[in-house]
Amino acid sequence: MSRDFDENMVQLVSEIAANYRRNSIFSLYASSKLASKVEIIEILQELRQLVFPGFFESKKLSSDTIEYYIGDLLISIEEKLHRQIKCALLYKNSIDNESEASCLEEKTNNICLTFLKLLPKIQEYINTDLKAAYDGDPSAGDIEQIIFSYPGIFAVSIYRIAHELYKLSVPCIPRIMTEYAHSETGIDINAGAQIGKYFFIDHGTGVVIGETSIIGENVKIYQGVTLGALSTRGGQSLQGVKRHPTIEDNVTIYSGASILGGDTIIGKNSVIGGNAFITKSVPEDTRVSIKNPELKFRNSNSNSKPKELEQEFIFDWII
Amino acid sequence: MSRDFDENMVQLVSEIAANYRRNSIFSLYASSKLASKVEIIEILQELRQLVFPGFFESKKLSSDTIEYYIGDLLISIEEKLHRQIKCALLYKNSIDNESEASCLEEKTNNICLTFLKLLPKIQEYINTDLKAAYDGDPSAGDIEQIIFSYPGIFAVSIYRIAHELYKLSVPCIPRIMTEYAHSETGIDINAGAQIGKYFFIDHGTGVVIGETSIIGENVKIYQGVTLGALSTRGGQSLQGVKRHPTIEDNVTIYSGASILGGDTIIGKNSVIGGNAFITKSVPEDTRVSIKNPELKFRNSNSNSKPKELEQEFIFDWII
Amino acid sequence: MSRDFDENMVQLVSEIAANYRRNSIFSLYASSKLASKVEIIEILQELRQLVFPGFFESKKLSSDTIEYYIGDLLISIEEKLHRQIKCALLYKNSIDNESEASCLEEKTNNICLTFLKLLPKIQEYINTDLKAAYDGDPSAGDIEQIIFSYPGIFAVSIYRIAHELYKLSVPCIPRIMTEYAHSETGIDINAGAQIGKYFFIDHGTGVVIGETSIIGENVKIYQGVTLGALSTRGGQSLQGVKRHPTIEDNVTIYSGASILGGDTIIGKNSVIGGNAFITKSVPEDTRVSIKNPELKFRNSNSNSKPKELEQEFIFDWII
Repeated sequence: MSRDFDENMVQLVSEIAANYRRNSIFSLYASSKLASKVEIIEILQELRQLVFPGFFESKKLSSDTIEYYIGDLLISIEEKLHRQIKCALLYKNSIDNESEASCLEEKTNNICLTFLKLLPKIQEYINTDLKAAYDGDPSAGDIEQIIFSYPGIFAVSIYRIAHELYKLSVPCIPRIMTEYAHSETGIDINAGAQIGKYFFIDHGTGVVIGETSIIGENVKIYQGVTLGALSTRGGQSLQGVKRHPTIEDNVTIYSGASILGGDTIIGKNSVIGGNAFITKSVPEDTRVSIKNPELKFRNSNSNSKPKELEQEFIFDWII
Repeated sequence: MSRDFDENMVQLVSEIAANYRRNSIFSLYASSKLASKVEIIEILQELRQLVFPGFFESKKLSSDTIEYYIGDLLISIEEKLHRQIKCALLYKNSIDNESEASCLEEKTNNICLTFLKLLPKIQEYINTDLKAAYDGDPSAGDIEQIIFSYPGIFAVSIYRIAHELYKLSVPCIPRIMTEYAHSETGIDINAGAQIGKYFFIDHGTGVVIGETSIIGENVKIYQGVTLGALSTRGGQSLQGVKRHPTIEDNVTIYSGASILGGDTIIGKNSVIGGNAFITKSVPEDTRVSIKNPELKFRNSNSNSKPKELEQEFIFDWII
Repeated sequence: MSRDFDENMVQLVSEIAANYRRNSIFSLYASSKLASKVEIIEILQELRQLVFPGFFESKKLSSDTIEYYIGDLLISIEEKLHRQIKCALLYKNSIDNESEASCLEEKTNNICLTFLKLLPKIQEYINTDLKAAYDGDPSAGDIEQIIFSYPGIFAVSIYRIAHELYKLSVPCIPRIMTEYAHSETGIDINAGAQIGKYFFIDHGTGVVIGETSIIGENVKIYQGVTLGALSTRGGQSLQGVKRHPTIEDNVTIYSGASILGGDTIIGKNSVIGGNAFITKSVPEDTRVSIKNPELKFRNSNSNSKPKELEQEFIFDWII
């Protein structure tokens, strides 16, 4: 280390410490209240082992002892989840006064237990998503491949877990979970969204599903689809307001389409073509396509001006 | 752990076990037949060390001993790959009867050996991709930077490895490999696609290249490009059908363009402008641009109505 | 291992070694000059611990001992950074002759020290980004959630670190840093871009910000936005030329918009609507929206021809 570094060290340390003090969020470092992102990801990995037995561990499983496998995982999950939920509740000041504080342990227990009891239901939902992926993708050779490698299944599985914690009003943890999935897959599903069974996201990179979206059963969406808000100009004042669309049963939304606004409803059985930009409701049984922007073709070997050929765009081609 | 948890434990375990039994895919847990995603990623990392010596390990390499380095890596790769391919073949029931079963070892050996012998060719192809990246990107300071950090090189390298295993009809593993690259880069190249030398993907997030795409030499594509199918309504019945386009030599495709359909051919030396949506073939030497959607400009300080200015869109600007 | 493998081994090893020799980039394996991507990522993780104390470590922090925490981190960061910068300078031949070579240690010291002294400023900038994220996103429950999980904050924090090293002409390392962020978030910010305070990227997947972009204060951008070049046909000859746009203060750019070209300036307080494609400057205080491509609606239960309904597109809806 250079001498200059030593000489400048004291000054630097005190400047950084002063920055901590100036920002209330970092003046809390004395507490050990913060949730641990690492442990939350461990919880997700153990839940994945629970939901997809045999796929993500090196242990040999056997039908005779499968109950021990499940029990072991549940105990480990409960221990970690309990610790993280307690951190999150404490930190978020969901515990406001002394009498409530004494209930913190009980509250944490209740949330944990309620969540764990939902696991069989979460598992069933994820199994419907698997089926939808297999039925919807000609390149899926088998279901194992989907479990091992499909980003849509990864992101939706984590969303289904996070969503139950979100409904139990657990702070912070659901978002950490879904952003972990976002980082791994490029699929950004807010834990607050409501999504029915048999949901399939193909390819998925760039998908954004906003907090107050409502999605029915048997919906299929492709890469780059946004279910978004028309405006977030209101910032924090919009918390809780329905800002994102409703997608009814059996709807397919092709890549790059944006559907925006809390009052926008896509009626059941409808199909939204690629790159459509929709800010109004669409009735049931409707196929929506964009009148494709005209293309200009120019031969790069001649000096001819661009020829504007209307590219006919028959909707049937793209669904 | 709370008492409630204990009391509810037995019930929960049996519900989850019942879910396993209901779904045939999870009733297989007694077997140890499944491929290991962790080991498949290790294989990729060792292959990367082989292809880019000195870049992804802490060992000092020397020209005197480089053969040992290569040999060590090959032995390790072969051992892991052999184990994984055997798992995948067994699981997928590519081995149908007893006499075939006795050939499993031989079949695995043959695939492994054939693949390893292809490594020098794979390496040469990847070197052409490196050259294309360097020639095509003004912000690439040097080739080292490209090897260390370009997502396009990462994804294409893994694709080139996975593609050879795909051609050898190895189940499951090629997709695990390309989805690993997808997760790391946002670039989704199906292992079945055929891609020529000197291929460069710039930025890359959101790129999707479908299973039956055919891409010539010296092709350059940008972020958000889809080479997709017009319809996947047929689901599993479409397996094997050419559903994705053909891109001939020396074509450039700018960001956000979609080229769809198994009969769509982009002729050599053509340039496809950003956001174009193409479902029909384009002849050789053609520059295709979209007639840009009109923009509306409104001064937010006045009450004037939106002024519709046609934004002139000279194609030369964007290539 | 099969006998065939053994027999083919020698041949294979020599082919791969020959490939190394043919490509000058890999003939360098004898040297230990290469930077270590692993250690560069460790540096980023320690810098993150420094900037967000208490969020990304398991240690309990206390206000009494916070100076030790800072000091420890700085020593560790300096040691690693010094090693990596020296590697990068050596490798890149920034040291051209003997007298310069004797200065390598001093040059490395100077860069390290200059960078470390910038840390309080970097920290302040990142705090403004945090504030912008909180103010701009209704679904952000609290600032902790943003620090833990928002991809925009992750990518911009790493950009701010990499940018200072870029300005100090450190080779290779800045790009490794920003591509690490790209891999984790789908947000691709070139270390060369200049970005003012209070910068917020929401969702972020698919964002590309080119090397010579200039962005003012209080700018907000959404997923899929490209600040790009009109042409990179010139390849390496364009190095250093301003190829990417300038975005002035208080501009918002909605999802999927592309703004291209080094002479393109988006004037302050302007708002660019979703999917706009802009290659010319936009004055101050302007709202730009695309005249939405017409949508075709067809009832899939009838044989009616597509009805072309003009979807009214009032700009106010989308800002």
